[in-house]
Amino acid sequence: MKTYKKGILPVGFKASGISCGLKRSGKPDLALFFSENPALASCVFTTNDILAAPVVLSKAHLKNNSSFQAIIANSANANCFTGSAALKDAGETARVLAKALGLRKECVLVASTGIIGKRLPVLKIKRGIPEVIKKLSSQGIDKAAKAIMTTDTFAKIFSVKFNVGAKEITVCGVAKGAGMIAPNMATLLSFIFTDAQISQGALNKALKQAVDVSFNSITVDGCMSTNDSVMLLANAKAGNPLINQGKNLNLFTQALSLVCLELAKMIVRDAEGASKFIKITVKSARDQKTAKAVALNIANSNLFKTAVYGENPNFGRIASAAGSCGAGIKEGNLKIKVSSLKKKDIDVEVSLNQGNSGAVVYTSDLTPEYIKINAEYN
Amino acid sequence: MKTYKKGILPVGFKASGISCGLKRSGKPDLALFFSENPALASCVFTTNDILAAPVVLSKAHLKNNSSFQAIIANSANANCFTGSAALKDAGETARVLAKALGLRKECVLVASTGIIGKRLPVLKIKRGIPEVIKKLSSQGIDKAAKAIMTTDTFAKIFSVKFNVGAKEITVCGVAKGAGMIAPNMATLLSFIFTDAQISQGALNKALKQAVDVSFNSITVDGCMSTNDSVMLLANAKAGNPLINQGKNLNLFTQALSLVCLELAKMIVRDAEGASKFIKITVKSARDQKTAKAVALNIANSNLFKTAVYGENPNFGRIASAAGSCGAGIKEGNLKIKVSSLKKKDIDVEVSLNQGNSGAVVYTSDLTPEYIKINAEYN
Repeated sequence: MKTYKKGILPVGFKASGISCGLKRSGKPDLALFFSENPALASCVFTTNDILAAPVVLSKAHLKNNSSFQAIIANSANANCFTGSAALKDAGETARVLAKALGLRKECVLVASTGIIGKRLPVLKIKRGIPEVIKKLSSQGIDKAAKAIMTTDTFAKIFSVKFNVGAKEITVCGVAKGAGMIAPNMATLLSFIFTDAQISQGALNKALKQAVDVSFNSITVDGCMSTNDSVMLLANAKAGNPLINQGKNLNLFTQALSLVCLELAKMIVRDAEGASKFIKITVKSARDQKTAKAVALNIANSNLFKTAVYGENPNFGRIASAAGSCGAGIKEGNLKIKVSSLKKKDIDVEVSLNQGNSGAVVYTSDLTPEYIKINAEYN
Repeated sequence: MKTYKKGILPVGFKASGISCGLKRSGKPDLALFFSENPALASCVFTTNDILAAPVVLSKAHLKNNSSFQAIIANSANANCFTGSAALKDAGETARVLAKALGLRKECVLVASTGIIGKRLPVLKIKRGIPEVIKKLSSQGIDKAAKAIMTTDTFAKIFSVKFNVGAKEITVCGVAKGAGMIAPNMATLLSFIFTDAQISQGALNKALKQAVDVSFNSITVDGCMSTNDSVMLLANAKAGNPLINQGKNLNLFTQALSLVCLELAKMIVRDAEGASKFIKITVKSARDQKTAKAVALNIANSNLFKTAVYGENPNFGRIASAAGSCGAGIKEGNLKIKVSSLKKKDIDVEVSLNQGNSGAVVYTSDLTPEYIKINAEYN
């Protein structure tokens, strides 16, 4: 398995990113991802009760349709919580794009990220569609990755190549994160592309597993967003024997998980205001659910996060956070190890002495800069 | 019902606060509360798996004993997560105090607040016991309230007087809070005293109800402490007809709830680094549990709290936080009203249009000052 900290679009995919005027800064804000042939799609969305319109629309398209060719994503506006206008605007975006590409509108998926509660300037998007189509290129993934950024300070891209028999398969993903990041997910958008030939069932299974150990194992502020979407397209262009189960599915899941995990870690590294990257490993828990709950409780503790920011080895806050989620921890069994807080990368290892399960969660520290960014964001 | 924003100890109670050397600043750090005659006690403690030793000890005394005469509380050290030494130190504190007062040690309750994970300097406490006893006075409640402060900037005291027939009953409470404040409770200590004559069952019932709408309806940072304790003593000195049920119990519960709520609000007002006092009312929820869950989810959202700090009316963050606790909110039914963010006191009203239940929760904003305090606290 070969890994690349850059974008290598698989055969048959193109991407582009342009500025259509949503960001006052004039930076790129509209991304398009395109598959030359119909592709299978598998998606994971936020579980928030309040769903952004692009999530509602994409879910409907996934329900009524089984092949997809385009994903359009904008930054600077979440297209959420603006009443019935939101869904109309998302539908209009899909309709205009589909028409320009000569597709049925159900073949289009839509994603948005940015401020909640302000009407989407859909006219700007519609006006940008001809240009974003014109710019489509097999080299365009970097520009697309930039166009989905909000408070992100760098574009997040990762690629993996591996072989199934004689055929080389590529998995390439981009993501945006920064704030409102919590498991089950966050204002987190990720778009992943593969040329693997794979069954729908296997694709869904692989994505669920990959998201579980990556995007659903990170937290920045414990805030779950209304717009989280991970969208995966598989266009079968590699011409490999169909992946359905067994060794080849394991291999594909491994590659996909690696892409997702590397993107997830970049999101944490680029968390709003973060000065530290924290890995929390919980060991010897009763079961995996308990292990993850304890890890997340520590990761979401403002007191723990400020202590890390202050390079202040206040272990009591880890014990207190671990003990507050009802995991039935016995004080005498709780072992805590923390690496030097002076470094940028911090390792926290918590052992519960209850059983044999474990979990790993990634988070950042809580800093005055996080507050500054979020006090002013509008 | 007469209310007083000051301490009026009921008949038969005394209190004192001294400095025994736990705080490097030399400020008061040891408080004693004393009842001249044996009193009934009712307590509510943290539900954290990791319990501070004074909580473990006090729970044991409450199990084996039904009359109490003294509460000793120290600040600057939580006496928690230091292995078997912690319980030994708490026991030693109770034993030495009981001996000096001529009581059985089971008549003493113990509480601590401060840093977790550092051995309690029990020798300093033992050396301070003769002085803290000597200083006991019916006017000593202010000094005791000061001695339990950690990062609190003001002492929290409230009293209520009401009549049962011809007899006047007093309820007087003190509290400390500041950080690690979350429902089910927080590094929150509160000691409440009444001269009411009341049955044990009625006392427990009244305290549970009062704590539910006060100390368990506030959150500063969502962090639950290992030391939270609300301790209520009732010494029957008012000579009123026994309160057991009905109108008189309602009256007592009302008075006790008022004391607890005023103390809880003071804790939020004095939250670490807070610049705003936020009241969140959730209305027309399916049931009370849902209403409280939604209110707390908003109250614990770092993004909402930073928006309030920035006086930035980002209503989307309220919708997003409300939607993320699985309450089954329909977007079209969700109504949000927020008072002017320019003021110090903010009112947030969220209507779910699901049913007839409601809840009120109090919280503060999240500020750079909170981070500064907690990055440096050690």
